[in-house]
Amino acid sequence: MLRPVKLSPDGRVLHLLDQRSLPEREDWLDLEDVESVAEAIERLAVRGAPAIGCAAALGLVASSWRFSDDTVMFRESCLMACERLARTRPTAVNLFHALAHMRGALAECPAGLAVAGVRGHLHAAALRYVDDELRACLTMADHGAPLMPEVGTVLTHCNTGALATAGWGTALGVIRRAHANGKKLRVLADETRPVLQGARLTAWELRHDGIPVDVIADNMAGALMARGEIHAAIVGADRIARNGDVANKIGTYTVAVLCRYHQIPFYVAAPWSTIDPATASGAEIPIEERDHNEVHLHGGRRMTPAGVGARNPAFDVTPAELVTAFVTERGVFRPATLSALMDS
Amino acid sequence: MLRPVKLSPDGRVLHLLDQRSLPEREDWLDLEDVESVAEAIERLAVRGAPAIGCAAALGLVASSWRFSDDTVMFRESCLMACERLARTRPTAVNLFHALAHMRGALAECPAGLAVAGVRGHLHAAALRYVDDELRACLTMADHGAPLMPEVGTVLTHCNTGALATAGWGTALGVIRRAHANGKKLRVLADETRPVLQGARLTAWELRHDGIPVDVIADNMAGALMARGEIHAAIVGADRIARNGDVANKIGTYTVAVLCRYHQIPFYVAAPWSTIDPATASGAEIPIEERDHNEVHLHGGRRMTPAGVGARNPAFDVTPAELVTAFVTERGVFRPATLSALMDS
Repeated sequence: MLRPVKLSPDGRVLHLLDQRSLPEREDWLDLEDVESVAEAIERLAVRGAPAIGCAAALGLVASSWRFSDDTVMFRESCLMACERLARTRPTAVNLFHALAHMRGALAECPAGLAVAGVRGHLHAAALRYVDDELRACLTMADHGAPLMPEVGTVLTHCNTGALATAGWGTALGVIRRAHANGKKLRVLADETRPVLQGARLTAWELRHDGIPVDVIADNMAGALMARGEIHAAIVGADRIARNGDVANKIGTYTVAVLCRYHQIPFYVAAPWSTIDPATASGAEIPIEERDHNEVHLHGGRRMTPAGVGARNPAFDVTPAELVTAFVTERGVFRPATLSALMDS
Repeated sequence: MLRPVKLSPDGRVLHLLDQRSLPEREDWLDLEDVESVAEAIERLAVRGAPAIGCAAALGLVASSWRFSDDTVMFRESCLMACERLARTRPTAVNLFHALAHMRGALAECPAGLAVAGVRGHLHAAALRYVDDELRACLTMADHGAPLMPEVGTVLTHCNTGALATAGWGTALGVIRRAHANGKKLRVLADETRPVLQGARLTAWELRHDGIPVDVIADNMAGALMARGEIHAAIVGADRIARNGDVANKIGTYTVAVLCRYHQIPFYVAAPWSTIDPATASGAEIPIEERDHNEVHLHGGRRMTPAGVGARNPAFDVTPAELVTAFVTERGVFRPATLSALMDS
């Protein structure tokens, strides 16, 4: 199974499959300090909410080999590293969840424990976090596969596969499991401008697995729905609010509105760690506005005239009422059930 | 005023502003034979339903200098040229309207008229066609400008400006006139994948006119509507069926559905020549499927993995019930009124 985010066996190096080079090249980055890990996240060498969380947890462990051998200073450096990593990207909650997990592991260590012991404890905690994320994907896929049509075309947006997670994937993991179970699925992959995670990454993963895929421009799904050519849509999530509102890659909301208009089921697949009980509704989720050059450039070439403005919100919020069901490792839930579970 | 399609004064050369090079370069093509004109249309050197019609009418005149001096053979060549031009692009009706106009002019010439006389008659007819198209844009703009908000943001899709027409523009002409009348408009231009007419051409025209414009990826409009940041949408049309269904650039239908969902007015601006009484409904409009490389490539660079499929419908159909009003040179009409006029 493809594992795009992994630690060297000695724990000193974070290996990241550089997603910016795909599908042209498979470049791996070897990162050994906090700043490199943070920049890899900011510059999208690793992206996808669960994968970002894994990169932060494992990256902290690798970076910690550069910290002081004095246990007080070591702990201080760990906390500063967590702060730096938390400033990389604001929207996905998994990042903050992973960092909270690591700070919790740090707090569990007795005050007098030597640096080697603390580091060992952090190393174990990070591997446990990643294993839990991977297991969540596999379980989620089992729960979600029955929702896919026996024969039909499924629309997905952005990349939610092995590359976006600890491995296997969320929404794409559901599709993958349904395909493995013998369902005859064809995938339509929204190219997902401006960063093209669909055209580059989802298409690459599906082709690797032998699942039929056609890439479409983001503005084509509506017309294909009107022609009756799309039977379900499934996407991931970067953060789910307590009321079930979903922040996800820009364009997700439009897919959800189109599905409602055409009465096509719209599923969100995400690990439980994506749900943020501290966020009451989507209105509270900070939406990252990224560099406008992502919109001006196509394949590295500027296509807009000089002096023209752009907008580049990286995410949007889909209200809970547009979600047919949430697929999680704990089961499949209607939005009302999910939010009742959160409030109880 | 920018005139992207024009005939040399002696009628021998069709000058086309090559829209594929914009905004980087302003290259003009000088075309003198039917095949060159047809390929310029097929390869999108000229695009936009009214501009294609103008290029076909004027291109026939330029090409006719290469035809036989024998009047029977000359007429035969004119008809064959019309057939070749009709095979270039199937969706926009203006092309067929322009060719019917030219065949009509040919038929008006008495049988014995010498080639010079026939050619002169065709030349005059083509210039009249282009003038009528330009006048339609200017009148349409007067009718449509009052529909624009006094202060607000207007979404548009594809390019419907001077470049898409004989000059001035349809939907963009309405925006231009409203701006000239003192309305404080900001334009959001959908980049309009795969060919990027919005990012390249609409942005270029608006910047030239000093109208504030931000380019967005096609998947962003929904999120901005949900935030209340878009007050109206206006687009052009490639063909309007008798019942008011609208074929236009792929992605138009999604804009229309999003507008309905958010209760934002959705206007279609088009010359009367875009209405095709012979087409009962949108279901009868042939939708051009273009080369999949348009989807695979971004800025000339392939971004999808080798071996992956794509879809590339160049147009979609928006049902009449999603159109708030049609803006034409004959006035502003609700869909029901337009279709009643057609049926009467």
